[in-house]
Amino acid sequence: MTALQDLYPDDFAHCYGCGRLNAEGLHVKSEWQNGEAVARFQPSPQHMALPGFVYGGLIASLADCHAMATAAGASMVAAGATPGVDPTPRFVTASLHVEFLRPTPLGPELLLRARPIEVGERKVVVEMHVFADDKDCASARVVAVRAPSTMHRGA
Amino acid sequence: MTALQDLYPDDFAHCYGCGRLNAEGLHVKSEWQNGEAVARFQPSPQHMALPGFVYGGLIASLADCHAMATAAGASMVAAGATPGVDPTPRFVTASLHVEFLRPTPLGPELLLRARPIEVGERKVVVEMHVFADDKDCASARVVAVRAPSTMHRGA
Repeated sequence: MTALQDLYPDDFAHCYGCGRLNAEGLHVKSEWQNGEAVARFQPSPQHMALPGFVYGGLIASLADCHAMATAAGASMVAAGATPGVDPTPRFVTASLHVEFLRPTPLGPELLLRARPIEVGERKVVVEMHVFADDKDCASARVVAVRAPSTMHRGA
Repeated sequence: MTALQDLYPDDFAHCYGCGRLNAEGLHVKSEWQNGEAVARFQPSPQHMALPGFVYGGLIASLADCHAMATAAGASMVAAGATPGVDPTPRFVTASLHVEFLRPTPLGPELLLRARPIEVGERKVVVEMHVFADDKDCASARVVAVRAPSTMHRGA
């Protein structure tokens, strides 16, 4: 399935975390699957906190972008659109809360699973878990709001 | 004054956010000043969320590393050591909560000001604000815990 981020309008596709048009970025890709969003990400060797463990800032970054895609997918479903097929609306982060449940090993691919727990027209709340080697290493609760037109230079 | 991160032991100086030995990293530098910690960071052009605005994941990353240094500085003061002079103990992040108060403009140097609000032997809670052009763009509350010996390969 096409990633939600691949269907952001071009003006919204420059994000360091998930923008397909950001050459230096992380390129987080989130797929909508049966009411939740799933992403897989392979950290690079330099993404360490201490040798052997993933940097918490990277986990926060992945959570941020994956949550915005989840919020978009949930808002699309609520509006009768199809995530991964129709254009993805852009949400931005109002708040990001990450709990680091255990040190995340650096090496395995990370799996992020997120679901919307509150879906309003303007605001969506997302809960997420980050797994490495099937272990739940971090959870996040993220509040997303629809990107205001003042953030869109083309608006 | 010497940055707190410059006085982490070598084994703890590889962090992507603040490790002096991480060639690819962000190299956050925090200085202890009269009971608070201050850091300045210049985002790169690729660190965008949307054109013109700083990526939230970068702000979370800066907050993470700056808070760990703040926690270390506070714990040093509590133990009679001098931040920026004596070796810096390594804390790791238990939880990270960022509130994005307004879109952060991409261009100006960011100023991070953090202070400890709870200082225990093992756990320190830090509050922080992130300013751009003198505007308060984000706040963060971060719980830091002393790095367990199981995270230290040399231990």
